[in-house]
Amino acid sequence: MTLRTDIYPADRVTLREVGLRDGLQLAKALPSTDAKIDWLTQEAAAGVRHYEVGSFLPAGRFPQFADVRQMIETAQALDLHSAALTLNERGAEAALASGVREMVCVVSATEDHSRANMRRSRAAAVDLVADIVAMRDAQAPDKLVNAGIAMALGCSLSGDVDPAEVLRLAEACLEAGADIVGLADTVGYAGPRAVGALCAGMEKLCGDRPFIIHLHDTRGMGVANVAAALDNGARVIDASLGGLGGCPFAPGATGNVVFEDVVFLAESMGFRTGIDLEKLTDVRRIAEEAMPGEAFHGALHRAGPPVNATWQAAPAA
Amino acid sequence: MTLRTDIYPADRVTLREVGLRDGLQLAKALPSTDAKIDWLTQEAAAGVRHYEVGSFLPAGRFPQFADVRQMIETAQALDLHSAALTLNERGAEAALASGVREMVCVVSATEDHSRANMRRSRAAAVDLVADIVAMRDAQAPDKLVNAGIAMALGCSLSGDVDPAEVLRLAEACLEAGADIVGLADTVGYAGPRAVGALCAGMEKLCGDRPFIIHLHDTRGMGVANVAAALDNGARVIDASLGGLGGCPFAPGATGNVVFEDVVFLAESMGFRTGIDLEKLTDVRRIAEEAMPGEAFHGALHRAGPPVNATWQAAPAA
Repeated sequence: MTLRTDIYPADRVTLREVGLRDGLQLAKALPSTDAKIDWLTQEAAAGVRHYEVGSFLPAGRFPQFADVRQMIETAQALDLHSAALTLNERGAEAALASGVREMVCVVSATEDHSRANMRRSRAAAVDLVADIVAMRDAQAPDKLVNAGIAMALGCSLSGDVDPAEVLRLAEACLEAGADIVGLADTVGYAGPRAVGALCAGMEKLCGDRPFIIHLHDTRGMGVANVAAALDNGARVIDASLGGLGGCPFAPGATGNVVFEDVVFLAESMGFRTGIDLEKLTDVRRIAEEAMPGEAFHGALHRAGPPVNATWQAAPAA
Repeated sequence: MTLRTDIYPADRVTLREVGLRDGLQLAKALPSTDAKIDWLTQEAAAGVRHYEVGSFLPAGRFPQFADVRQMIETAQALDLHSAALTLNERGAEAALASGVREMVCVVSATEDHSRANMRRSRAAAVDLVADIVAMRDAQAPDKLVNAGIAMALGCSLSGDVDPAEVLRLAEACLEAGADIVGLADTVGYAGPRAVGALCAGMEKLCGDRPFIIHLHDTRGMGVANVAAALDNGARVIDASLGGLGGCPFAPGATGNVVFEDVVFLAESMGFRTGIDLEKLTDVRRIAEEAMPGEAFHGALHRAGPPVNATWQAAPAA
């Protein structure tokens, strides 16, 4: 257990790049495997160590993830921490046979979304987490199991989501054996007060164990919500280069919170990320060239870090 | 005095639209006066009451503000609160002869920027505030004098700015008779920790008197910085429709913090703005059509407010 959770140390901020998974989920112009490998390699050179590299799904229906094994092998060769979605037992079997270091299960915060999106109840989704944990324990005990709770801050089907219910679901996932739980504002409904309050509850629930916050910038609150999360104990933050990734319920909307801008935020708050912002900005170009017509977002890349100022605050206490 | 400061009540949030002034400062495609009047009229219909409508500057060099008197008259006819920049005594004379309700003076936080940009020392800039206050007292005592402190959170010439020095300058402006002081992150250097700390200091200095925070989204921190400002006592927030307005020191950079996104943020934090987000989003189109080729920013307008959720939090205590 100690070994597994050392992947996400509780005393520093870890930024997870999800652009190669969530960022490609709705993309129309899919990057080639070579371009994805180049993206991964260059972003690693900029100092980013944690990646969702794809999803174990049928390649026929999800061609963007057909090369998930190759992406995992690339991450392995670069000694990066790789994660991939495993949405059923077949996916988990494939993940266990691969070199992936983290298997991501998804549980919905609301019964409506769980049944509509995953075709199972929330209870069944938690049972699946337990099943995957058992498979992991038997076959590859060094791999992490991550349970991500979708719609944790508002649901496009059910509307408001009760934070107490989300925390109960998070607890159920931990009891099912998940090493780490993530909270996702899948449709970008939340403002910083809601994010801060939910993270404070999560910190209380998780104690020394880290948790992940996964935010979408659908309504422009992404960076403000990350700040609130960091202020309330979150130490693992999902983001995507250029904010790649849209919203299935709001066509044309902005996507994941912008990775580059989150690096600047974290550093300005005194959290050292170990990431070189100038190199990271260069990696945007690889993704932009590989995905013509896709919308990339963010502000930092236009202006660059402040000139002539010690913009990196003293490390947070 | 009471009458004047009632313009910005201390117990609620006021959003000031600065797009018609700061948003046009660097614009290449200037909107016609008719388009500006349409913009102002429609944004007023969406519930926005406070505007910077222009600047009293030589029309030959600043054609974007040649119609400042017409904009002031339009605001008057709509019973809106209008403000205009008065950067010298000539500008103040012109403002006093007009129906503008607020005269905005600018003081730089750093000696370097003050001399390079305004061609006067900071002390001389504060003296000018006192002179304009005296002119106002003699000629039009119902008008407000606003002293805006540029580069208050970092300077593209001097680098870091000492918050204690900014607070001393703010105090000097208040002692010179300014009714309200604004703090500007002119070049978008700050993160939320710095903004929150400076606002907390400002709240202590100003007591019951409101102060203004003016933020640029140059590095994507705009909305996060507004959240930090609101959390630390700021109640008057500058923003511009579509984030119009760039940065003189970073060509192509994003501009003022996006008005629509700030409305969503404030409402999500429990601050009632009285602004209709759907109508406000429609006003973007007027500005976009009137300024072809200009970059407009923001996220809320793409997705709209959350559907099926009570996204407006209970009013803040």
